[in-house]
Amino acid sequence: MRSHYCGELESGLIDREVSLCGWVHRRRDHGGVIFIDLRDRSGLVQVVFDPDRAEIFALAEQVRSEYVLAVTGRVRSRPEGTENPDLPTGEVEVLGLSLQVLNAAETPPFQLDEHGADTSEEVRLRYRYIDLRRPEMQDRLRLRSRITQTLRNFLDAEGFLDIETPILTKSTPEGARDYLVPSRVHPGEFYALPQSPQLFKQLLMMSGMDRYYQIARCFRDEDLRADRQPEFTQLDIEMSFMDEDQLTVLMEQMVRELFKSVLEVDLPDPFPRMTYAEAMRRYGSDRPDLRVPLELIDVADLMGEVEFKVFAGPAADPEGRVAALRLPKGSELTRKEIDEYTKFVGIYGAKGLAYIKVNDWNAQGREGLQSPILKFLPDSAVEGIMARTGAEDGDLVFFGADKATVVNEALGALRVKLGHDRGLLEGDWQPLWVVDFPMFEKEPHTGRWTALHHPFTAPKEDQLDSLETDPGACLSRAYDLVLNGTELGGGSIRIHREDIQRSIFRLLKISDEDANDRFGFLLNALKYGCPPHGGIAFGLDRLVMLMTGSHSIRDVMAFPKTQTASCLLTDAPSAVDEAQLKELALRIKLRA
Amino acid sequence: MRSHYCGELESGLIDREVSLCGWVHRRRDHGGVIFIDLRDRSGLVQVVFDPDRAEIFALAEQVRSEYVLAVTGRVRSRPEGTENPDLPTGEVEVLGLSLQVLNAAETPPFQLDEHGADTSEEVRLRYRYIDLRRPEMQDRLRLRSRITQTLRNFLDAEGFLDIETPILTKSTPEGARDYLVPSRVHPGEFYALPQSPQLFKQLLMMSGMDRYYQIARCFRDEDLRADRQPEFTQLDIEMSFMDEDQLTVLMEQMVRELFKSVLEVDLPDPFPRMTYAEAMRRYGSDRPDLRVPLELIDVADLMGEVEFKVFAGPAADPEGRVAALRLPKGSELTRKEIDEYTKFVGIYGAKGLAYIKVNDWNAQGREGLQSPILKFLPDSAVEGIMARTGAEDGDLVFFGADKATVVNEALGALRVKLGHDRGLLEGDWQPLWVVDFPMFEKEPHTGRWTALHHPFTAPKEDQLDSLETDPGACLSRAYDLVLNGTELGGGSIRIHREDIQRSIFRLLKISDEDANDRFGFLLNALKYGCPPHGGIAFGLDRLVMLMTGSHSIRDVMAFPKTQTASCLLTDAPSAVDEAQLKELALRIKLRA
Repeated sequence: MRSHYCGELESGLIDREVSLCGWVHRRRDHGGVIFIDLRDRSGLVQVVFDPDRAEIFALAEQVRSEYVLAVTGRVRSRPEGTENPDLPTGEVEVLGLSLQVLNAAETPPFQLDEHGADTSEEVRLRYRYIDLRRPEMQDRLRLRSRITQTLRNFLDAEGFLDIETPILTKSTPEGARDYLVPSRVHPGEFYALPQSPQLFKQLLMMSGMDRYYQIARCFRDEDLRADRQPEFTQLDIEMSFMDEDQLTVLMEQMVRELFKSVLEVDLPDPFPRMTYAEAMRRYGSDRPDLRVPLELIDVADLMGEVEFKVFAGPAADPEGRVAALRLPKGSELTRKEIDEYTKFVGIYGAKGLAYIKVNDWNAQGREGLQSPILKFLPDSAVEGIMARTGAEDGDLVFFGADKATVVNEALGALRVKLGHDRGLLEGDWQPLWVVDFPMFEKEPHTGRWTALHHPFTAPKEDQLDSLETDPGACLSRAYDLVLNGTELGGGSIRIHREDIQRSIFRLLKISDEDANDRFGFLLNALKYGCPPHGGIAFGLDRLVMLMTGSHSIRDVMAFPKTQTASCLLTDAPSAVDEAQLKELALRIKLRA
Repeated sequence: MRSHYCGELESGLIDREVSLCGWVHRRRDHGGVIFIDLRDRSGLVQVVFDPDRAEIFALAEQVRSEYVLAVTGRVRSRPEGTENPDLPTGEVEVLGLSLQVLNAAETPPFQLDEHGADTSEEVRLRYRYIDLRRPEMQDRLRLRSRITQTLRNFLDAEGFLDIETPILTKSTPEGARDYLVPSRVHPGEFYALPQSPQLFKQLLMMSGMDRYYQIARCFRDEDLRADRQPEFTQLDIEMSFMDEDQLTVLMEQMVRELFKSVLEVDLPDPFPRMTYAEAMRRYGSDRPDLRVPLELIDVADLMGEVEFKVFAGPAADPEGRVAALRLPKGSELTRKEIDEYTKFVGIYGAKGLAYIKVNDWNAQGREGLQSPILKFLPDSAVEGIMARTGAEDGDLVFFGADKATVVNEALGALRVKLGHDRGLLEGDWQPLWVVDFPMFEKEPHTGRWTALHHPFTAPKEDQLDSLETDPGACLSRAYDLVLNGTELGGGSIRIHREDIQRSIFRLLKISDEDANDRFGFLLNALKYGCPPHGGIAFGLDRLVMLMTGSHSIRDVMAFPKTQTASCLLTDAPSAVDEAQLKELALRIKLRA
């Protein structure tokens, strides 16, 4: 029906007759002439209807916003002075020669131009088919499609096979909650929707597939936090006979080529690498945003003679941490701003936010400092702090002192916030591999060991012995890829020996019976010739969100759900017939 | 860990040192030397371990089938007379210089060589990770990956966007049963897994996406017939501003390029097209296998004077059909063979299978025919049959006389069976578009109209009036792509006007209230500027099955389920905790 997309028209086509299809973006009547901005996926073009073609003109008078039109017309230059440099097609317009209304439209519930952006997300989701017509949303989904296809082409060229794994499967072990699917053929039994294809991709390696990938839908019935969705998509990858160095090198090459091809951005080659321990020490986070040029600096050892309990307590506690965070030019901060940062770190459990303003240390020394805690600090401590943080006149030094987990979370978050608030970000894209993660962490309440990644992650080869003797010190063969402070992907070399897998389960207090019940098929498969293997999974929604500069993963999904896991468009979930439930041998039993 | 894949080794690499990783396919000890066929995804190569390297030799003696090895060695020519022409690497072997056992293996439950093919499917599915190591299964999954990627690249180049649609959604309207997913956040409510993304892809057209595709997982909780799976995959496509001719031309170009690229097969250009009416008349089927050069021939009009009720009844019945099927050289068939074909058509409801053997019509006329029904047929009928079927001496003519649906199914199936049994197939690949389907068919029991495709299929433009007056005569804008008698894909131009959509619902006896409840979001969306659009969905599993020459879609899926929708590998579905059910506000209520 069309010869060209609207957005393709340019002065090279002048005098050509073209056929266009699209939506009425805007209609204006001006000087007895009707101007219609016709919109399709590619953009907008101005179509002009003259009164001398009476019949078409009369029809054009009737069209309203979002009517669907088929137009033929002749491309011509816009009259001098009426060009629109903001529009790619702004040098030309189309003189309408025929017009067909393919469909009418009621007045849309919100505008599709700039003003539409202020519409509430609820309305946007309810009328998603209108929201998605906005050029911004079109661009996002177009870029998403391009990103996935670029990734696939890379993997295809590297010999990876795209293999589909089941969605109706058995309960998986990732801890978060499974969505269940009742079975009609086996009443009283349930499938689970996968939280990831983890075990299936490992089984594919045992199947000799060597290199696997899948753009895989995953499901988690979690309490929905800010930017979570009940279903999400990951680029899931697994390969055999590779160690972590080879694997991460290949994966960062993929990410580099993706950014080059889609955004024309050169990411560093190689990506920097950092151990988990270093990341926590310097940034208080295992996914540090390296664009922020601020670092946590340990000062516990300087607090030996301090009688201020807030510092001295954590300094003496083996699980405590006392750290400083220097903010260059921070002495500009007002009392009110500092109060707000204090409130901010409170979210992360910090009981306060000590600071020292460095007004004039050079000339006045201690007198040139301004701080509510100064009185608690002996000279040696003050001098140590100033020397170690390298604070200069005009700076401000924040302090965190608490359990290490609290200090890391609070100062880690403050560091990122300051970076944004104060415009300190350096570089647009800062990727980082974080490696040498601990195998286990202790649940604070129960004291039980849990897997930091998942229980199929291999421990470092040279630390097999410490598995039983000192699990907390045991490092894993896991790696995370972090970009601008967001975890883009994570993976590990997996356990390929049955005995090690069993001892990990035991350490995690999964009984042999339980292990056989839940993972029997994996343990069994490990007996029949499992190759060394490892892999990674990238959160595709988050990757696209970053690459499109969106603020929410909902903005890069065609039909997302709300925070209560509802689809406002279709009204899912919803009630079902009694008869359907009966067939599934189920009864609803709402709590009183 | 490897420098080469096993299957890559050839005489060009002689004297090169290579590192290989793989599985022990076979180990033989012969003349004091150990031969190991090492297998990876690419194929097999023979590795030789000499006793002069005592340590390695001792290790090689311990390995068994399916052990996982890393080997380095030197490529050399096989000694003259020991080359294996059946093996791509059969000219060379690798002299083992180092050997590492990466993992041991218990004796596998079945052999991986030729003999393994006889293993029961149950055992194959239970140990799928071993079954998938068989080169045959590897080839199938590799080809599947190549097929999907080739399709994606075509669509990508044609401007289609890959857009993901939800898997947790609202009950869909395709008639077959939905899988339900209870919601924890909304107790007593359920999501449904999609039977297809039909409504979402239409919404994407209303969203201005213009061209959409997705390799989409679909779900049907059906009573499982021979080759159905509870979850299956379709290549789902939708486009705007195209009519059925443009759309089918583009789609057949895609299929043609796929076959050329993956199988090096040239499919016809263009594909032949046939109306539904013609397909039913000539082949008794709307998905005729054109490789079979046999056709049904109507003979009802010749039966006017026949007193034989079996023929005369259907001949006089407006819903009846009397048809002949000529089998060239069919007079060779024995009585026993004919009895078996009679039994075969009985499956389709035929009450018998009349026939005439043409032994010597040329010289003897009626006397040269042999048939139990000859006595009922007047000369005029016999002559008419002989003339119209073009039967020659040595042929056999079968007859079907019953309700048209029974004759079509029975003779249609017989036609295909004869084609295979008698080796009559012509051409390897015979694609066909079937078009001009009826909009509706009548449910035999209730007399109610149902949609032959689905209720979103558009009627032909020129038949809008007959919608109400004569629904049975109304043709739709649907099209099916048939290949070798298998329906590969089906689609239609959709309804894009709310008033027509509502009148279709009314005709299907879907009340306005019900329509609003189930499809309100679609009806609403149709009001806001819906473009003309249409699409198609291809059954990917079936396509891959045909292209790999497999006999079951289970053979082209990595982890299929059984006919009772169970996964024998993971034991899904299975019982779940009482606590989980409680959270979902559900109780199991098994029937006594």
